[in-house]
Amino acid sequence: MSFERLIEKIRETKNPTVVGLDPSYGYVPAYIRAKYAGEFPDPLEGAACAVLEYNKKIIDAICDIVPAVKPQAAYYEAYGWYGMKTFAETVTYARQKGMYVITDGKRNDIGSTMEAYAAAHLGTVDLDGRTATPFGADALTVNGYLGTDGIAPLLKVCKELDKGIFVLVKTSNPSSGELQDKKINKRPVYEVMGKMCESWGKELRGESGYSAVGAVVGATYPEQLSELREKLPHTFFLVPGYGAQGGGAKDVAGAFDENGLGAIVNSSRGIICAYKKDGWTEEQFAEAARAEAIRMRDDIAQFVTIR
Amino acid sequence: MSFERLIEKIRETKNPTVVGLDPSYGYVPAYIRAKYAGEFPDPLEGAACAVLEYNKKIIDAICDIVPAVKPQAAYYEAYGWYGMKTFAETVTYARQKGMYVITDGKRNDIGSTMEAYAAAHLGTVDLDGRTATPFGADALTVNGYLGTDGIAPLLKVCKELDKGIFVLVKTSNPSSGELQDKKINKRPVYEVMGKMCESWGKELRGESGYSAVGAVVGATYPEQLSELREKLPHTFFLVPGYGAQGGGAKDVAGAFDENGLGAIVNSSRGIICAYKKDGWTEEQFAEAARAEAIRMRDDIAQFVTIR
Repeated sequence: MSFERLIEKIRETKNPTVVGLDPSYGYVPAYIRAKYAGEFPDPLEGAACAVLEYNKKIIDAICDIVPAVKPQAAYYEAYGWYGMKTFAETVTYARQKGMYVITDGKRNDIGSTMEAYAAAHLGTVDLDGRTATPFGADALTVNGYLGTDGIAPLLKVCKELDKGIFVLVKTSNPSSGELQDKKINKRPVYEVMGKMCESWGKELRGESGYSAVGAVVGATYPEQLSELREKLPHTFFLVPGYGAQGGGAKDVAGAFDENGLGAIVNSSRGIICAYKKDGWTEEQFAEAARAEAIRMRDDIAQFVTIR
Repeated sequence: MSFERLIEKIRETKNPTVVGLDPSYGYVPAYIRAKYAGEFPDPLEGAACAVLEYNKKIIDAICDIVPAVKPQAAYYEAYGWYGMKTFAETVTYARQKGMYVITDGKRNDIGSTMEAYAAAHLGTVDLDGRTATPFGADALTVNGYLGTDGIAPLLKVCKELDKGIFVLVKTSNPSSGELQDKKINKRPVYEVMGKMCESWGKELRGESGYSAVGAVVGATYPEQLSELREKLPHTFFLVPGYGAQGGGAKDVAGAFDENGLGAIVNSSRGIICAYKKDGWTEEQFAEAARAEAIRMRDDIAQFVTIR
């Protein structure tokens, strides 16, 4: 009902990072793409097969040293329903390998529609007496613009099935301030949203003190990150923006508590495209991903010690 | 590059409404569910087949009198990737029948990820020289919490492929005010978001004056609807909340301009579950949907005259 399972994995691996599986087509090594490109009448199917092979090899290469993966739904939807099949298979494969899976979908809606998203990504559906698991991730990113009606249906699933959510609070992009930094009664919108996370998670706190309602806070805004760490003591952070987007290890240090917990830092391109730099060959993409995952872990360890 | 195609369809049918295809499993008549329930090892596949039949029959029954459908992605994701296949087939089928298709996905992200969503739902993808269309709807609902970085990639696709987006401004649910009604420099968040829509759509205005950047504004807040109609003269409205959620024809009247244009009103359950009331049988679900669509059209026509 909270992020205890994720925290346990982070402790085990001594690694508070998550690898973003954002398989843009150009990221997949050409030799894998070529293998499937001519095989299917619908090019979406070939692309989805190539992505699945790419993902599995990356998961194989990192699953013993990285606690979690974060597949980004957009990059699977871009291959149509074939892509969603690859998405489902990626989630299942990563979980079989012992990884914690965060679906990055930034879903949002209300009432029964949000219940459908919760069932789709974290829960189960009942179909005339038969129970099925549509995608079955461990956690989901969501957008809180619609208020409590959009979050409450998720809390039920979090509680019953030991899952978690991450609500967008302060995103890593340059224009995030257009709305998120605007002041409401002297407090920025991101702080208002952050306080809502604390309140939504109140009944879902685990032993660590963190609840099942986490927040997305970008590495590109280190000041806000430290400020929010202090103001939101029960909210676990998912921190995008490290690496390719410009955030460094020092920038993310403020996301962590005195035990080196309370946050998990994401890198996507930096890891899954690591083979594109430093003299690696295409065929070494998985090895390169592992090497970069180790480098990132050690980079952050300079500033964060997990106790 | 704007909503001219939608406006044309509304004029043709003299009907500013859209039918929400939100196929929660319990909405599908039992005799259709039974037909597929035992046929597949994975119950998700049977459910997705049942939903496709349900959707097609509803589309057949309304396509000559209703300009648009709005499939809600959550209810397809809830059937896993089989559901996404049904989703793709529903979009294609409705477009073949001449309907304008609005995918209700409330998607949001930044940069290349938002490009992936735009390609997935509205555009095309290039796969080593072969072009494919993942889902291919006419318009997509989106969430603007991330600011311009999350919207700009969509504008490009809107312009190049004559598509549209609807940004969440003031949603129909009871708790929408928790954030959306809060004041930023004396103006509510929803107005700030609405003004961003006007600015995002500036270069994408059609002959009607409306741009490709629309807004979602709930029927359950008639005062805000009228206020926003006045303040956002180039922003076309998608209006949920009519019917099952409590909004009436009088409540939505303020969404329209002096030509009876500028808005399209959604009903989901009210239409697709119409067979559950008024003495219809299950087998008459499509007829009942048509009758209710006509009733809704005529209900709104009391207050809105399309010129």
